[in-house]
Amino acid sequence: MAFKSVLTFRSSPEKEGHSRAELAARYIECRKQTEALAAPLTAEDQMVQSSSEASPAKWHQAHTTWFFETFILSPHLPGYRTFDQRFRDLFNSYYNAVGQQPEKALRSTFSRPTLDDVCKFRRNVDEQIAVLLGSDHSSEVLELVELGINHEQQHQELLVTDIKHAFWSNPLRPAYQQNRSATDLAAPSQKAETHAGGLIEVGANGSAFHFDNEAPRHKVFVQPFRFATRPATCGEYLAFMDDRGYERPELWLSDGWKAVLAHGWKAPLYWEKHDKEWLHFTCSGMRKVEEPEPVCHVSYYEADAFARWAGARLTTEFEWELVAAQAQVEGNLLEQGRFHPAPAQGGDDPLQLFGDVWEWTASAYLPYPGFKAAAGALGEYNGKFMSGQMVLRGGSCSTPRSHIRATYRNFFPPETRWQFSGIRLADDSL
Amino acid sequence: MAFKSVLTFRSSPEKEGHSRAELAARYIECRKQTEALAAPLTAEDQMVQSSSEASPAKWHQAHTTWFFETFILSPHLPGYRTFDQRFRDLFNSYYNAVGQQPEKALRSTFSRPTLDDVCKFRRNVDEQIAVLLGSDHSSEVLELVELGINHEQQHQELLVTDIKHAFWSNPLRPAYQQNRSATDLAAPSQKAETHAGGLIEVGANGSAFHFDNEAPRHKVFVQPFRFATRPATCGEYLAFMDDRGYERPELWLSDGWKAVLAHGWKAPLYWEKHDKEWLHFTCSGMRKVEEPEPVCHVSYYEADAFARWAGARLTTEFEWELVAAQAQVEGNLLEQGRFHPAPAQGGDDPLQLFGDVWEWTASAYLPYPGFKAAAGALGEYNGKFMSGQMVLRGGSCSTPRSHIRATYRNFFPPETRWQFSGIRLADDSL
Amino acid sequence: MAFKSVLTFRSSPEKEGHSRAELAARYIECRKQTEALAAPLTAEDQMVQSSSEASPAKWHQAHTTWFFETFILSPHLPGYRTFDQRFRDLFNSYYNAVGQQPEKALRSTFSRPTLDDVCKFRRNVDEQIAVLLGSDHSSEVLELVELGINHEQQHQELLVTDIKHAFWSNPLRPAYQQNRSATDLAAPSQKAETHAGGLIEVGANGSAFHFDNEAPRHKVFVQPFRFATRPATCGEYLAFMDDRGYERPELWLSDGWKAVLAHGWKAPLYWEKHDKEWLHFTCSGMRKVEEPEPVCHVSYYEADAFARWAGARLTTEFEWELVAAQAQVEGNLLEQGRFHPAPAQGGDDPLQLFGDVWEWTASAYLPYPGFKAAAGALGEYNGKFMSGQMVLRGGSCSTPRSHIRATYRNFFPPETRWQFSGIRLADDSL
Amino acid sequence: MAFKSVLTFRSSPEKEGHSRAELAARYIECRKQTEALAAPLTAEDQMVQSSSEASPAKWHQAHTTWFFETFILSPHLPGYRTFDQRFRDLFNSYYNAVGQQPEKALRSTFSRPTLDDVCKFRRNVDEQIAVLLGSDHSSEVLELVELGINHEQQHQELLVTDIKHAFWSNPLRPAYQQNRSATDLAAPSQKAETHAGGLIEVGANGSAFHFDNEAPRHKVFVQPFRFATRPATCGEYLAFMDDRGYERPELWLSDGWKAVLAHGWKAPLYWEKHDKEWLHFTCSGMRKVEEPEPVCHVSYYEADAFARWAGARLTTEFEWELVAAQAQVEGNLLEQGRFHPAPAQGGDDPLQLFGDVWEWTASAYLPYPGFKAAAGALGEYNGKFMSGQMVLRGGSCSTPRSHIRATYRNFFPPETRWQFSGIRLADDSL
Repeated sequence: MAFKSVLTFRSSPEKEGHSRAELAARYIECRKQTEALAAPLTAEDQMVQSSSEASPAKWHQAHTTWFFETFILSPHLPGYRTFDQRFRDLFNSYYNAVGQQPEKALRSTFSRPTLDDVCKFRRNVDEQIAVLLGSDHSSEVLELVELGINHEQQHQELLVTDIKHAFWSNPLRPAYQQNRSATDLAAPSQKAETHAGGLIEVGANGSAFHFDNEAPRHKVFVQPFRFATRPATCGEYLAFMDDRGYERPELWLSDGWKAVLAHGWKAPLYWEKHDKEWLHFTCSGMRKVEEPEPVCHVSYYEADAFARWAGARLTTEFEWELVAAQAQVEGNLLEQGRFHPAPAQGGDDPLQLFGDVWEWTASAYLPYPGFKAAAGALGEYNGKFMSGQMVLRGGSCSTPRSHIRATYRNFFPPETRWQFSGIRLADDSL
Repeated sequence: MAFKSVLTFRSSPEKEGHSRAELAARYIECRKQTEALAAPLTAEDQMVQSSSEASPAKWHQAHTTWFFETFILSPHLPGYRTFDQRFRDLFNSYYNAVGQQPEKALRSTFSRPTLDDVCKFRRNVDEQIAVLLGSDHSSEVLELVELGINHEQQHQELLVTDIKHAFWSNPLRPAYQQNRSATDLAAPSQKAETHAGGLIEVGANGSAFHFDNEAPRHKVFVQPFRFATRPATCGEYLAFMDDRGYERPELWLSDGWKAVLAHGWKAPLYWEKHDKEWLHFTCSGMRKVEEPEPVCHVSYYEADAFARWAGARLTTEFEWELVAAQAQVEGNLLEQGRFHPAPAQGGDDPLQLFGDVWEWTASAYLPYPGFKAAAGALGEYNGKFMSGQMVLRGGSCSTPRSHIRATYRNFFPPETRWQFSGIRLADDSL
Repeated sequence: MAFKSVLTFRSSPEKEGHSRAELAARYIECRKQTEALAAPLTAEDQMVQSSSEASPAKWHQAHTTWFFETFILSPHLPGYRTFDQRFRDLFNSYYNAVGQQPEKALRSTFSRPTLDDVCKFRRNVDEQIAVLLGSDHSSEVLELVELGINHEQQHQELLVTDIKHAFWSNPLRPAYQQNRSATDLAAPSQKAETHAGGLIEVGANGSAFHFDNEAPRHKVFVQPFRFATRPATCGEYLAFMDDRGYERPELWLSDGWKAVLAHGWKAPLYWEKHDKEWLHFTCSGMRKVEEPEPVCHVSYYEADAFARWAGARLTTEFEWELVAAQAQVEGNLLEQGRFHPAPAQGGDDPLQLFGDVWEWTASAYLPYPGFKAAAGALGEYNGKFMSGQMVLRGGSCSTPRSHIRATYRNFFPPETRWQFSGIRLADDSL
Repeated sequence: MAFKSVLTFRSSPEKEGHSRAELAARYIECRKQTEALAAPLTAEDQMVQSSSEASPAKWHQAHTTWFFETFILSPHLPGYRTFDQRFRDLFNSYYNAVGQQPEKALRSTFSRPTLDDVCKFRRNVDEQIAVLLGSDHSSEVLELVELGINHEQQHQELLVTDIKHAFWSNPLRPAYQQNRSATDLAAPSQKAETHAGGLIEVGANGSAFHFDNEAPRHKVFVQPFRFATRPATCGEYLAFMDDRGYERPELWLSDGWKAVLAHGWKAPLYWEKHDKEWLHFTCSGMRKVEEPEPVCHVSYYEADAFARWAGARLTTEFEWELVAAQAQVEGNLLEQGRFHPAPAQGGDDPLQLFGDVWEWTASAYLPYPGFKAAAGALGEYNGKFMSGQMVLRGGSCSTPRSHIRATYRNFFPPETRWQFSGIRLADDSL
């Protein structure tokens, strides 16, 4: 089977503590998490697709279920009867090997199946996955369920960022949740720690779940570097704006400057100036921009220009990983339910490596040495996107805690702004 | 008041039989009609906006209500309290004089207000219109209510054509209604009647409701002409297609040929060839193309090319009106509930002037001599669209019976195909 | 032969004074005129194509020659040998019946043939036309040569408007000719003459050359109207601009307002504000806008908005023709060599019907009753453009005197601004 | 001075043999080379700009001269009088710090200055550079002249690729030069050499001219790899095409597949199938595709898909440099005057590292550790393009011999095809 190289469990899942019972429990937890995220939304809310980057919440609920049906139940559960034959194409996102897909923009027309039908689809697949996990002990099935959970977690984050964009697009500006003010509006000052670098190893080794793009683990040489102790804040970004950051081409990459002119960018996405005050749209509605909060919803171009303005640069993905490999995976993640970055709190530096905001790196998204995409449909998961995108690291306030790790590589085109994407400065240490 | 010239009741509405009681009854009937059309649709269905030409059904329900609130209740009902202040901009379509409007494409993001809220908005406005009609005897109010009813009838037709497009866009191809087969699948053969023309009068005179673009009534000189006894059928159109109609530039206007190449047109909208059979999407789902049915969902360019291929031309709007002025307003209209054109049935020629399909004319949509748009917002109703569009006449299977008349001028850009638009041939009589 | 209905000489050309000798002389004169217009231009200048509407001067010189070769020499001169086989496709503009055409945008890549080669092509065709006119007495050949001359005259005007645009696009802003100041910078005040209208005849009758789109002559009924005694001036247009004409949507057609927003129009094409003074680019370079000069380089939308602002409307093409039928064809035309409109001078009203600026009419460009396009390639001359365009009347400062007449119908899409297009006001007479 | 880090001469130019006399000689040689390349072109040919990527030959001649005037003569030659003030903006390409630039597409409208004027500009600058080099001994001036020569060499290559595209766009398909057939139509078979990799140094050290993007020299760790002994041939690429390479999405990056669909790619740029034979447009006109020749005019996406089809991958820029550091800089380069890749000839492997075709690498174009763009205008030379582009190595048949070296980094967006860009396969050595 081709999926091996995608999952790359090297040792027995059982031994690694991924017992079937635990996996079944995590499956249920994951599915409930998705539904909890959708709970504040009406059936109508779950129809909205407000940009070509986003998808409707109902589609996220259906597509994640389709993944379990298509890649696990259909090939592995004897006698499994497809819930609805027509869903095979309808909820395919981009897997050419599975068959046709509707154009992405059409997802907003999927009033049928109704949300009720999609919920039935979810329950049916949940029941059958339970049956499968009760009967099939093969590591392949366990690995695939693990992959399906991780896949659904990615869509949980997208569900949040997509509904945020949807509600922002609606002139009524409804809120996704009640206002949750940050409790501690101050942030430690920005500092730079020096790291020695050297010939290090990066990437995932085989003992736990990871995506194929995190492997193979391999050596890289890293020059000495300085690394910011926390992400850049709104206050620091306002200083860049006040210093005419959006008007000075010398601060920008050529493509970035074109984007500034083409889109009329004058501030991060969701920011609006009312009278003399900057507000931004959050999952709790319009709110004052708080200076100590990490800045987010900036593109790679803005992150890069800010860094140049600051006399620094962005971190590389390997510098980031070298630092993060020493840190605990904890922070302002999905489970906190804030869906908004919070000011850094005192503690051991560096702060906020995980959660709050994805950190744009200066690294293009490329395969690691020795990477080969899997054969078949699941080989389309990551490898085919390895051009024209930049790596982000660390997860955000909408990333599930069990989903993120030091070796995790997220990636988006450099113009992307609707994710919770922020800025970690670095520099060469001379 | 500026609205006079829009409405152009010249005599007292009372005397013309438009008593307040009758008007109130027609108001209620109209509002119920809209809701009956929306009844087969889920709240999710009513969110879909599948093209830049169309709007969601929920939006149609809200916007027609907004019209009554904005132009009647707010200025004329003492003490009227706006249902929701935010709707004033939200459900404005294109009236610059009323204020800002959201970009049309954003209508698909209006998950809030919910359908329930829109229904409450409808009921509230209905109650207040009843109060107003019970207390205000001014002809201005009566005229405005009349205008509001006619406005809502236009949106009833759009609601049908828009949901047809929405369901066609969904790969599942749901049906709006149960299949209603045509009962009599034969059509009389096409003939041409000769008319003498001469110096005639066209346009609406003041004694009954009409839109401003139908007036003033005025003289035009019409040459002798020949006029087809019924619209062109699918069978006739198939002959055009079989004769390589879509491949011969000499049959097309230059802009039409560009449209053929740009869009890859090979058949009317909604047509698909399965094996060797032509099917088309209807309000009752996918169905075989029946040769005796009037062809519809063709652009002006296709109608014009078909006419050239047939050695004829399209009728002008004045030839059409001259003929239709003698006919009864009856036919396959909205109230029949077919939402699909039916084969012509024997009877006095010409057939199917009203209902079935709108008939593209060879006339550009321009003001009549002496036309002046009203001042203020309602002056934006028709006049500002008088460029780049062609006139259609006669109503379709989705036009309310009380909405259509011989002087009625519909208009669309020549590329338009999602309306029930068909072909009436004519020619010069030499 | 199919060309008959294009040319519609009804009587013998000889009897009408179009003797062969005279025609041969006019042919030579026309060809020399083209070359005189190109004389100030380098070979490099003649390469420039600065917009999708325009063509390079060299192309105009070649295409007009191609017309004579393709439609006259090849079919009618026995033993004629094509100058260069490859030119048949290369210099075809839009005649699908003749064969393939290069995309219009490619004309800027035709560095080969060189200008020298094109001049040889011209001389060769000139010699052969002389041979043909010396030997072939058929009225068909005479009619075709007449058509070819008229065709080349159209391209003379385009050569001027296209090189004006080309030089304006070059940041160096070279001048096409030496500065020719207007001698008399004052204009009579604007007045409106009343005309009774009635059942009149318009269109060309058969006794002299005209294009197919001017025929058949036919009856139309015209309401009483008022007609401005001269075109609107720059001074009047500045008053519209100063009254925020470009900022008030209520003055504009819906499509016009979209064009204002999409293109950021704030003034006519070629106008620029330097400090507090308006300048515009002319064939003599940048020059102060003179208030008494007729305003030009406005789109139909701007002409229409200006008229609405002025409490008037544009003239219809039939009103215009009714008035112009009484006037002499004289004015500031190509032969004056000014290539710029001049202030109206006293005289019998109405003034400046011919020359100075084309006058946008309120009439869509549609076929006259009984119009049939010719079969074959020459049938593509006019008829296939009869959608989406508005009629202009009267010729401009770049129209040859022998080319224009009261029945002449020019036509352009409503956004067009690079022609010398101006404004003649009219109104209903109540 | 800011230019230091651009040029990064670390030692005295004099000692390195870059005596002023030698530099002056190389300056003259370089300028003559440009003019020799332009010699076969008419003034009209030198006007053509056939795509948004390309520029007219006249512009290349002027812009390279502008570079010497703007960055060397104006600041460094006392009393230098600008040849024409207006050229400062006119011939600026993208240096925001120098001032405004015309939109790139406008370059095709620069009929003025004429080619003659541009030649005078060239001669004037040549004379003044000679004066400067005779009087100013500063290393800064020498370094800037060196930079100007290298800049002009880049435009020499572009002049060739741009005129190739221009002539291909002209339906007459003129040839840039007489047909030069390859003399030896056979190529050695493709093999893979194994390299051990390890912790190596890459990048330019300071002792000779290099661009800022080649420095600093730094350590990288390279895994063991296999490296193809020659570039892929047309014959090998035809095998990919015959195996439906352009129809199988699983072979392509996601963005690559979109490009295939959007542009309808079925073969490399310039290839056309006539009957059953593949021809391609070359600088010598249309010619049969010869199987032993290196394939070129492929995008990064095509190179990547071909490699995947072949079970391999593209080389990284560091693997390439590691191998090339051992090789002589010689091959089919500009001075050969073929302007077309030639079949590999026997000799020591690997073959054709330099010349013939640029080799797309799997490396994104990013700054080296420690890279800082220079301050001021020359800092815009390379650094601001470091996003969205891929590195190419080795030079092509249109690269001057003295311009290329093992550390040289060329870069283009992955869709680019009009350069002589080809494919070098590599793979991991496991």
